[in-house]
Amino acid sequence: MADEAVSRRTVIQVRGDARTITDDLVVEEPMEIRLDGTSLAVVMRTPGDDADLARGFAITEGIVTDPDSISGVVDLGEGRWNLETAEGVVVDPAQFQRNFYSTSSCGVCGKASIDAIRVTGARPPEGPVVDVATILGLPAALLERQDAFHSTGGLHAAAAFDPAGRIVVVREDVGRHNAVDKVVGDLSGVSWPLPPLGLMVSGRVSFEITQKAAVAGISLICGVSAASSLAVDLAEEFGMTVIGFLRDGGFTVYTGRRRISNL
Amino acid sequence: MADEAVSRRTVIQVRGDARTITDDLVVEEPMEIRLDGTSLAVVMRTPGDDADLARGFAITEGIVTDPDSISGVVDLGEGRWNLETAEGVVVDPAQFQRNFYSTSSCGVCGKASIDAIRVTGARPPEGPVVDVATILGLPAALLERQDAFHSTGGLHAAAAFDPAGRIVVVREDVGRHNAVDKVVGDLSGVSWPLPPLGLMVSGRVSFEITQKAAVAGISLICGVSAASSLAVDLAEEFGMTVIGFLRDGGFTVYTGRRRISNL
Repeated sequence: MADEAVSRRTVIQVRGDARTITDDLVVEEPMEIRLDGTSLAVVMRTPGDDADLARGFAITEGIVTDPDSISGVVDLGEGRWNLETAEGVVVDPAQFQRNFYSTSSCGVCGKASIDAIRVTGARPPEGPVVDVATILGLPAALLERQDAFHSTGGLHAAAAFDPAGRIVVVREDVGRHNAVDKVVGDLSGVSWPLPPLGLMVSGRVSFEITQKAAVAGISLICGVSAASSLAVDLAEEFGMTVIGFLRDGGFTVYTGRRRISNL
Repeated sequence: MADEAVSRRTVIQVRGDARTITDDLVVEEPMEIRLDGTSLAVVMRTPGDDADLARGFAITEGIVTDPDSISGVVDLGEGRWNLETAEGVVVDPAQFQRNFYSTSSCGVCGKASIDAIRVTGARPPEGPVVDVATILGLPAALLERQDAFHSTGGLHAAAAFDPAGRIVVVREDVGRHNAVDKVVGDLSGVSWPLPPLGLMVSGRVSFEITQKAAVAGISLICGVSAASSLAVDLAEEFGMTVIGFLRDGGFTVYTGRRRISNL
């Protein structure tokens, strides 16, 4: 986690008595993502891994179906980033522009249905298969790799893990979906399609987290908090596995039990 | 909290041993908000208080500056709601439509700067002033009024409270911002401008929560988790009070200490 992700402030802490202390706040700043110069989105994100975020966003939102379609991610300054499409790749930005905006914490913005995901042709792979002990070990493995969260208490984390439970990549962001996009953006630069991996998120398993995983080809999702009904519906439709409340030595399997070898 | 807010499912719970149980999942469904027939936004929300959500959204997003500008909120069926403007009220939907969309959990979508809020002319009022004991009593008061959160563990809550710490209205939603919009939508039907009230949220104090409060004329915000840097920047700019980590008998004042009488 880069220094730019936290902002040091003077605050008053009340706990028994009141004292003025210096505290680290998680930084939240707008970032505009462009595609060949056309604005696609403005996301509120925690600075750091911006190129991964832009690339991952393009993949998980189905703007490109293959990371090779993006030939470069260029920092235009002042929080503006441009995705350059590779020669011969035709993407119509108008297709992804919406006539409305959303303030939902899920922000599905107009493609808010399982039908819409279906038409992207997303087909999460069969793997990975993991065992119960591996799943139970994920929170500690994730915590070990997290950084800014400990100092600010305000960041969401997302991590990819292999079938043995090893954390492959972890990213933190003020926006839960940004953390997932940063993970996918990073992984997509290594191999594509992705190898069998699971996704672990520090919070809730929402519809959009599940949608992003589906489009990225990740079929196993674990969250520290609850899963929503629509997330589970989507996972069932696509044969994915959703695990929630993964904490304090236990978890809840909402769907896709077959990916847990000894359950 | 309406029955429609939870969805009962069969899940596998692993805690020591594994057992199959029936669990309540928080419902997450798309809702389209229209203004005189033109689509403004699709939000992923928990069903219930939909008319309040539509009305509150229009207010906190600055689409109307006065609730009287909305003469009716009509259920068009299948999650579609239409805001009808009062006779003589001219609102240009194009002004609020964006050429991009966002998946940020904050979803500020293009007006992502304090400058943008400044031009709305939002001026949060001077009140309320509360004391330390009142603030410390809020989590218990909120918990007492929450409902679905206990069964699903997946809902965000927002509440308005008066200077004596009494919860005036509480709403829950899968989307933290929706919960705030539902509160504002409900309150706006009672009196406008709002009387001196505080806003309590079950999670993090983000930029957009602060922005919505500012536009609605609520100058005191308390959150159970951390505040982001941009939320505090915005609050300082507008002379608001932001309190975070309000839990376990303590809290942190990020800015606006003067609204706490005995601190």
